[in-house]
Amino acid sequence: MAMPSAVKLVEVGPRDGLQNEAKLISGADKIALINRLTDAGLSYIEAGSFVSPKWVPQMATSTEVCQGIDKKAGVTYAALTPNFKGFEAALAAGVEEVAIFGAASEAFSQKNINCSISESLERFSPVVASAQAHGIKVRGYVSCVLGCPYEGEIAPEKVANVAKTLVEMGCYEVSLGDTIGVGTPASVKRMLTEVTKQVPINKLAVHFHDTYGQAVANIYCALQLGISVVDSSVGGLGGCPYAEGASGNVATEDVLYLLNGHGISTGVDLDKLIEISWFISDKLGRPPMSKVANALASRR
Amino acid sequence: MAMPSAVKLVEVGPRDGLQNEAKLISGADKIALINRLTDAGLSYIEAGSFVSPKWVPQMATSTEVCQGIDKKAGVTYAALTPNFKGFEAALAAGVEEVAIFGAASEAFSQKNINCSISESLERFSPVVASAQAHGIKVRGYVSCVLGCPYEGEIAPEKVANVAKTLVEMGCYEVSLGDTIGVGTPASVKRMLTEVTKQVPINKLAVHFHDTYGQAVANIYCALQLGISVVDSSVGGLGGCPYAEGASGNVATEDVLYLLNGHGISTGVDLDKLIEISWFISDKLGRPPMSKVANALASRR
Repeated sequence: MAMPSAVKLVEVGPRDGLQNEAKLISGADKIALINRLTDAGLSYIEAGSFVSPKWVPQMATSTEVCQGIDKKAGVTYAALTPNFKGFEAALAAGVEEVAIFGAASEAFSQKNINCSISESLERFSPVVASAQAHGIKVRGYVSCVLGCPYEGEIAPEKVANVAKTLVEMGCYEVSLGDTIGVGTPASVKRMLTEVTKQVPINKLAVHFHDTYGQAVANIYCALQLGISVVDSSVGGLGGCPYAEGASGNVATEDVLYLLNGHGISTGVDLDKLIEISWFISDKLGRPPMSKVANALASRR
Repeated sequence: MAMPSAVKLVEVGPRDGLQNEAKLISGADKIALINRLTDAGLSYIEAGSFVSPKWVPQMATSTEVCQGIDKKAGVTYAALTPNFKGFEAALAAGVEEVAIFGAASEAFSQKNINCSISESLERFSPVVASAQAHGIKVRGYVSCVLGCPYEGEIAPEKVANVAKTLVEMGCYEVSLGDTIGVGTPASVKRMLTEVTKQVPINKLAVHFHDTYGQAVANIYCALQLGISVVDSSVGGLGGCPYAEGASGNVATEDVLYLLNGHGISTGVDLDKLIEISWFISDKLGRPPMSKVANALASRR
């Protein structure tokens, strides 16, 4: 199959990335981060999460951030809404797109949110209904699509079922997440082959973590299979610093380097992205988790 | 094309890796490293380089190392021999396989060894002749196959010509090196398509650097095209520490993780390899450059 000629990069750094960083970043710095990301050409930003600040202190600024950013035409600013209360807060903050989620692993669902997968999805029904009533688009996430820290391997059929349910509920797109980064192209291919039996490929995105150094290869594999929407995080935000252990989200600049090498259009400027990668990493007091950002910095 | 069912990993850490590390490692530690690598199942070790210690102080121990290792049946211990004097020293040290090299970039050849590509290859003729007379196999390396720090892009035809010349000179295998790590699967595919017009794919190996985070994807692409010999370096030896800039050779354990995920046989034990990765990285006073070694260490 031919690689896509254009890819939409979904920038998850300001939410999924920062949420997994221990150091708190101010609302003003998050606003600066998001404004710079859209200036670099990113057209989809996951800007915040409307969840209790007791659970996720890093996201306590989400209303401030969503109201404070310079909203640019053609850019989607989205927020995660784990429940109806969060959805109402997102609505009040002027969010125009929200995201809901489900795990592909029963054990992960039970341990993480204390209910079954199907219960967790049912709880999102009022969110989706209200979103539709307000003309707000809903994106879905599936976690643990290539492995679970409790169950180990996950059957591709389970991923397909959750993805299908999210689409039937009203999600226009479902992002398939290798939450613990254990996949290789082999398991990516098995999983996508099964999921695309239930959901058309143009409704699917991939969300890979680089824990075992496989994320760029996994993305390359997904592109070969026809995926054209890729989640990534500037600077690899969300990973522990390299020397201290595992890394998290694949870095946007490493994905962009791959896409540029293939002549795949994204509208994103690599040089600007690398400056942003260092800007936010400096705020966290460490270098970026991105190979590209480090390689180009060493040439400066 | 189907992926290969088995891959030969060529472990270059003790030579190409350590040569690019600033901190000197003792001969005894190199011997321990090599013995542990073969114990982990690696069947090909680039053990040293017979070059003037003034040029490459890290390789001054090569005779000591090549004579001191526990030679195991079925394992190839090779050495780089940049000239005839080096070849004679390798012969005296009991080396059973040697490697010669040429750049695919004229500018790189001139800047690096002050002669043209064809002159550099001609100078290896006496090495190859004497190797053949002594029943010693010769492996060839081509550097800068996907880019040059002076010339930029390198035409795939140039790579094909150098690879073909090395085979015609008597090399049983030619390793194609992305010395500065700039390639993506797109350029890997263009290059291999051209080289395999001149050299059969079963005489080719790939040697990728992870400077821009593309090495594992590039290897996956090469496997898809039928390559079944991959050079790699335990712990990513040869790269600067992550926080200080660019990285070098792709880590053997990250490649092995990819191959294991695909059920491709190598004979190498991942757990032992990770212990070795930490053993040699500790000697260098820094963590491994490998994502897999860091991820699994964080779980210990």
